[in-house]
Amino acid sequence: MHLPDDQFADLSARIVAFARHYWNSLESLPVRPPTSPGDVLAQLPTEAPRHGADAAEWDRVFSDLESIVLPNLTHWQSPNFFAFFPANISGPAILGELLSACLGVQGMMWSTSPACTEVEIRILDWLVEMLGLPSSFLSTNHNGGGVIQSTASESTLAALVAARRRTRKAGVDASMMTLYASNQAHSSIVKAAMIAGFADDGNDRSHLRLIDVGPAFGMRCDALAAAMKEDIAAGLVPIFIAATIGTTGTTAVDPIPEIADAIDVVAAHLPSRPWLHVDAAHSGAALICPEFRWMSAGVERADSFCFNPHKWLLTNFDCDCFWTSDRASLIGSMSITPEYLRNEASDAGTVTDFRDWHIPLGRRFRSLKLWLVIRHYGVEGLQAFIREHVEFAAMFEALVRADPRFEIVGERTVNLVCFRLGPVAHETSTQTDARNRALIDRINATGRAYLIHTVTPPVDDQPAKFILRMSIGAVRTRQHHVRDTWSLIAGLA
Amino acid sequence: MHLPDDQFADLSARIVAFARHYWNSLESLPVRPPTSPGDVLAQLPTEAPRHGADAAEWDRVFSDLESIVLPNLTHWQSPNFFAFFPANISGPAILGELLSACLGVQGMMWSTSPACTEVEIRILDWLVEMLGLPSSFLSTNHNGGGVIQSTASESTLAALVAARRRTRKAGVDASMMTLYASNQAHSSIVKAAMIAGFADDGNDRSHLRLIDVGPAFGMRCDALAAAMKEDIAAGLVPIFIAATIGTTGTTAVDPIPEIADAIDVVAAHLPSRPWLHVDAAHSGAALICPEFRWMSAGVERADSFCFNPHKWLLTNFDCDCFWTSDRASLIGSMSITPEYLRNEASDAGTVTDFRDWHIPLGRRFRSLKLWLVIRHYGVEGLQAFIREHVEFAAMFEALVRADPRFEIVGERTVNLVCFRLGPVAHETSTQTDARNRALIDRINATGRAYLIHTVTPPVDDQPAKFILRMSIGAVRTRQHHVRDTWSLIAGLA
Repeated sequence: MHLPDDQFADLSARIVAFARHYWNSLESLPVRPPTSPGDVLAQLPTEAPRHGADAAEWDRVFSDLESIVLPNLTHWQSPNFFAFFPANISGPAILGELLSACLGVQGMMWSTSPACTEVEIRILDWLVEMLGLPSSFLSTNHNGGGVIQSTASESTLAALVAARRRTRKAGVDASMMTLYASNQAHSSIVKAAMIAGFADDGNDRSHLRLIDVGPAFGMRCDALAAAMKEDIAAGLVPIFIAATIGTTGTTAVDPIPEIADAIDVVAAHLPSRPWLHVDAAHSGAALICPEFRWMSAGVERADSFCFNPHKWLLTNFDCDCFWTSDRASLIGSMSITPEYLRNEASDAGTVTDFRDWHIPLGRRFRSLKLWLVIRHYGVEGLQAFIREHVEFAAMFEALVRADPRFEIVGERTVNLVCFRLGPVAHETSTQTDARNRALIDRINATGRAYLIHTVTPPVDDQPAKFILRMSIGAVRTRQHHVRDTWSLIAGLA
Repeated sequence: MHLPDDQFADLSARIVAFARHYWNSLESLPVRPPTSPGDVLAQLPTEAPRHGADAAEWDRVFSDLESIVLPNLTHWQSPNFFAFFPANISGPAILGELLSACLGVQGMMWSTSPACTEVEIRILDWLVEMLGLPSSFLSTNHNGGGVIQSTASESTLAALVAARRRTRKAGVDASMMTLYASNQAHSSIVKAAMIAGFADDGNDRSHLRLIDVGPAFGMRCDALAAAMKEDIAAGLVPIFIAATIGTTGTTAVDPIPEIADAIDVVAAHLPSRPWLHVDAAHSGAALICPEFRWMSAGVERADSFCFNPHKWLLTNFDCDCFWTSDRASLIGSMSITPEYLRNEASDAGTVTDFRDWHIPLGRRFRSLKLWLVIRHYGVEGLQAFIREHVEFAAMFEALVRADPRFEIVGERTVNLVCFRLGPVAHETSTQTDARNRALIDRINATGRAYLIHTVTPPVDDQPAKFILRMSIGAVRTRQHHVRDTWSLIAGLA
């Protein structure tokens, strides 16, 4: 009944061969599929098979993968994928995922597989040094430590409930608590507020303030300070500020030192210091290069920080790394120990039980893939990987600037270039937006590249703008893909 | 710099060979390792490597796996693993995980990879029929549907925030809301209440009522009804009841029809019907066999249901299947659509965007592993898999009953046998517990089997009892492992 080990070995080799064929064909596939809603459903049986696989079933599996799955994928690994942010995979990471699946252990507590917990602790400590993060995040700090979460959304939620916990212990009622992020912060901040009970929906601002941004789309700290001051005057208690290193719209960087200064000012009047969480989900990967650490200046004043190796650091999804310098509040917000999870090592407090560091109880051995990635590439290899994309982005930016029809919007920080067709004489901003919308639709319709748009917020006298995002971070993207994409865009403009 | 495809193929074959060797050695390894805290950390370098891998690095990786990782794992795939609940892996599931990692697509929205969403919809619809779940959970029902979540903890949290959403829309303030589960419900219920803001810590009962259980450890519905009535009399509003099919302690089954009846009685007096969530994380797998569907009688009256194929249905972690008959409330509790995630198909409402069905935004192509498992085993193969474990458990129960020193505690429902050394004359319950604690320590110290204990709650005139749990569900467990483990236990008693 079970798949014999020999056949498993053969089939795994066949999957790898299938994947290699897929990777080699990526360049020739339209980045987005022509799928209409229901196309895939129509090709799948409406009932599960009653009987197990016969000799030909695995042949049918591979033919279904070829005919049903592949033609209906958006090809995130295409060298011409410039949408959203990258979702890097790599050989070493896939091997780590495979290994984790084969070992099949659960790391919910130290005792349920000590190696699963201790490898993770060491790799997360490595990364503190690799990214230039503060020593307060090290596991060796009495109240610090890192953990792998599934996504930055879950890290944000974990940081938020830890912040609430710390403030509740100071005697503040949750109904009085207020949260802050820039209006360019990731949607997961609002979603975390909703899940934690601080907002009924995405428009509920009773506890959550979305702060205006400056011309480069970073948080305006005077506006943050004013909002906190106003809330305190109204008897409310600021508890949580989410700062972003690399916003999703434009990779803008919130000024952490000024945010921390603003927190210092109000903290003196509060029962408990507001929690500063730094969301570096995408751009945090660049901190592996010292020249990009201007973005994280002041991070030693944060209570928590996260970034996603599953975006731009060669580690397949899911893998978000989260650190805190206040693990007591984090664990206090999550820990419940029922009888069947009690054991000597945990009771003695000598070990780390990661189940209390995040929402899920169960957890797989995800540090294996990070371990293999870091060993294979080394710090220098990872730096070279990041630097190349940033160079490609700089080149693309120069190409845009050299074409008088186009303009750069905001400031390029690392690997994302935000640009648009500039306004022409006697044109309304709506008309400019419409020309840009038509342009991106034409680009994507070719299938030769995939970019997405965003709309920047109005800032000072500048209106909201519909812009194109050129996000460069796919593993297979070479310089010529970037150049060719620019030629495509310029030709269609 | 990147791993060449040829070398990737060679190394993946080497991982598979390593795994086969590991699986073949499982029977001879102590189920729990002799690791002391820090043993693994002491063997890992304190700094990440600067340089990338040389020719010998992958040899060192495999030797580290042999010498550092394997000796410090708890072997969840051992045929002698009878602790917690099973964490099944299988060849088809591992192949699906490998394939998902190689494709590297993101399924956060339909448009970001249509096949990822539509395969999942179809497989979850298959499972509705396979488990005998109500048609209200089908994607084809106007307000129903299923989704893969990471864990049951996340499903519980999703159900809870959906329940809150539904009640908020009826105008009820969250401060007035109350939640209910039995005192044997999974710790994730309390954790979800904490995360959602309904409890400060595991002991906060201001919003959460843990209801007493009967002699078989299922929820006492008279107590539930009384608790809801009392809360309503105090002006509070019951919004959420979590029922369990197969509690973690003893696989007890809460009586869903009676719980639904109790809800009916109070619902008439409430602005919105309380949400009934059924947590079948472990035992739900058994519903694939019609003869075990007595456990799920009444499930058509539930608002949501989840079970974990990653426990006892041959699908490696993570894979929790969650269904609801009120997807509008679920999505309403999670949905925020920023500009960069807007697209034509989603705006038109013609597609499903699973990002709004759970906490994370990103998601991998997890339905591939379920698809391959179901195709390989077929419904009949999966039924045979479940039935064998239940037969092993029945055999083990008979062995326990035949030994006058032992007694069965509670009622065996499927594959878990709860038992202990019975009290002897003139012994206090503390002394009985101590003898059982000593017994389980002796069993586990042999390394030849791994069981865990739990403590049952006091019921009526019965005191709390320290009991042993024999949980039979590992893929490699054969009848002789169960018999040998009983001989070991009886010999040590």
